[in-house]
Amino acid sequence: MEIATPYLLFLGDVPDALAAKTALGIVDWRPEWCKGQLRLAGCRADAEIPDMTIAEARAAGVRTMIVGAVNAGGVLPDHWVASIVEALDAGLDVATGLHSRLRDVEAIRAAAERSGRQLHDVRHTTQTFATGKGTKRSGLRLLTVGTDCSVGKKYTALALERGMRAAGMDADFRATGQTGVFISGRGVAIDAVVADFISGAVEWLSPEADADHWDLIEGQGSLFHPSFAGVTLGLLHGAQPDAFVVCHEPTRTAMRGVAHPLPSIQEVIDLTVACGRLTNPAIRCVGIAINTQALDDETARATLDAAATQHGIPAVDPIRTGVQPIVDRIQQDFPRP
Amino acid sequence: MEIATPYLLFLGDVPDALAAKTALGIVDWRPEWCKGQLRLAGCRADAEIPDMTIAEARAAGVRTMIVGAVNAGGVLPDHWVASIVEALDAGLDVATGLHSRLRDVEAIRAAAERSGRQLHDVRHTTQTFATGKGTKRSGLRLLTVGTDCSVGKKYTALALERGMRAAGMDADFRATGQTGVFISGRGVAIDAVVADFISGAVEWLSPEADADHWDLIEGQGSLFHPSFAGVTLGLLHGAQPDAFVVCHEPTRTAMRGVAHPLPSIQEVIDLTVACGRLTNPAIRCVGIAINTQALDDETARATLDAAATQHGIPAVDPIRTGVQPIVDRIQQDFPRP
Repeated sequence: MEIATPYLLFLGDVPDALAAKTALGIVDWRPEWCKGQLRLAGCRADAEIPDMTIAEARAAGVRTMIVGAVNAGGVLPDHWVASIVEALDAGLDVATGLHSRLRDVEAIRAAAERSGRQLHDVRHTTQTFATGKGTKRSGLRLLTVGTDCSVGKKYTALALERGMRAAGMDADFRATGQTGVFISGRGVAIDAVVADFISGAVEWLSPEADADHWDLIEGQGSLFHPSFAGVTLGLLHGAQPDAFVVCHEPTRTAMRGVAHPLPSIQEVIDLTVACGRLTNPAIRCVGIAINTQALDDETARATLDAAATQHGIPAVDPIRTGVQPIVDRIQQDFPRP
Repeated sequence: MEIATPYLLFLGDVPDALAAKTALGIVDWRPEWCKGQLRLAGCRADAEIPDMTIAEARAAGVRTMIVGAVNAGGVLPDHWVASIVEALDAGLDVATGLHSRLRDVEAIRAAAERSGRQLHDVRHTTQTFATGKGTKRSGLRLLTVGTDCSVGKKYTALALERGMRAAGMDADFRATGQTGVFISGRGVAIDAVVADFISGAVEWLSPEADADHWDLIEGQGSLFHPSFAGVTLGLLHGAQPDAFVVCHEPTRTAMRGVAHPLPSIQEVIDLTVACGRLTNPAIRCVGIAINTQALDDETARATLDAAATQHGIPAVDPIRTGVQPIVDRIQQDFPRP
């Protein structure tokens, strides 16, 4: 899935910032792609970029309107349809990560047909993939893995992209979830792929590359999550990472959506190495990323220090401390030829 | 997916028995459901059941015609369409495991609509599932796992169903692949499910049951297969097996379709226990099923004896020796209340 940039972010009339987190994530990481936002009357979210009409966005060179907000239920409200039709008729593509499909709304489908524009339903890939082969590909790969879902895997991969590029390294974020796809303009929502093709889709996503090129692949789920571990394992095998970073949220007591306790960081390292060896015998852990938002400064510092000491690798909070220690470790462990 | 029985098996005009292996598998395990076969001119396969026209099948009480043969490429040949339309117009449902969808052929879709009959495309489930929860369900479960794909996991589960029923136990085969679905009349082709719902689909497939009821769940792939391990892990977590049997083919040198070597039986036991503990801490291996077809009697016997001794559990060839030693072991390890 390739999404044309730059973007107009459609925020609808959502009641708070949380409902617009997709749009806010895109602005955080790709401000240069976000020309403006379109908000309906009553919208309580604000991406803090210029408000624009569709006509103004078109004149500013925008190529895709991203529906970057979600109402309760994840479906498309009827009163958002007119804006989507207007965008298509103005010559923009439209992309969403909603559970419902744009093309299932007759007025939207008709507008896309008469305008010849693209509809991108990121959660419903129609792309076909080959099954994974597990053959070693050239280039270097890092995968973010986790003790649970929603523990900062996307954020960590993006922060590493920023940090490695700043260090003069050749590094690209590779998206495996919907927000990540909007941020990279390319990718695949891996949890929406047919089960037989999980690892094959990741092989497509991260193809052969130059010997010193890094793909920073967004992880999903956890090998210890009873709902999603299959996705996580297929992603690990397809990514064949040379390096991985374990992401963790220390205040969580049960895994997201189920009753299971979180595994330890060491358990995640051990099982990731045990399974990852299948497609990359040299796989190694190069860092730990802990979300310390709920901790005070002192506790956060102590938590990071303890993790670094216990595991002998850098432990950071990508937001509070930045990821530079992990970038340094990668440069040390993988010196350029 | 629930398929109405009994069946008429459509063999088309395939050139050999291998191309009709789905039909032959159904006859092997559910002869009582197979009223007849329909073969076109030139067919070289024979399920050794009565040849029947569609009208004769209808008169014999048949409710579903199974397209139990596959031509090169897995698509539906144009000259099979007339028989499928005739079956629908005669009041039969039609089921296939082909890669192409019955409903994508206009004449077939129209016939299904006018007759009100069902089309079952087993490889293309449209059923929606919840995500897996990993919560312990009542009843007992056994999963067949493997060192590779196509090493006898379906056959072993079916042989155990037969053996356990003969021993007076309450046991049901649970299908996760297309041929298995035809054999059980119910099930889900797990590799065709959207990745997020692999374990949830298995939880649907094997619901709560009586305390002494066994579900014998057909395994898929291998935790060590770089193409399909994600499916295998989601299946393991959803099945939450109390017991598992490792299936193996000793003459194979590389995993099916890829260059990777086969893992050892011990590696499969260890990783299955390590991962399976997540949804069933009491998971244990109760037997090994080895396909010794390529070995002479003496080598086969020695291979089975060596495996049993090394691992301390029964090792059988379900075809050559039968599975009774594993049935005995299950009765010993899981005494009735």
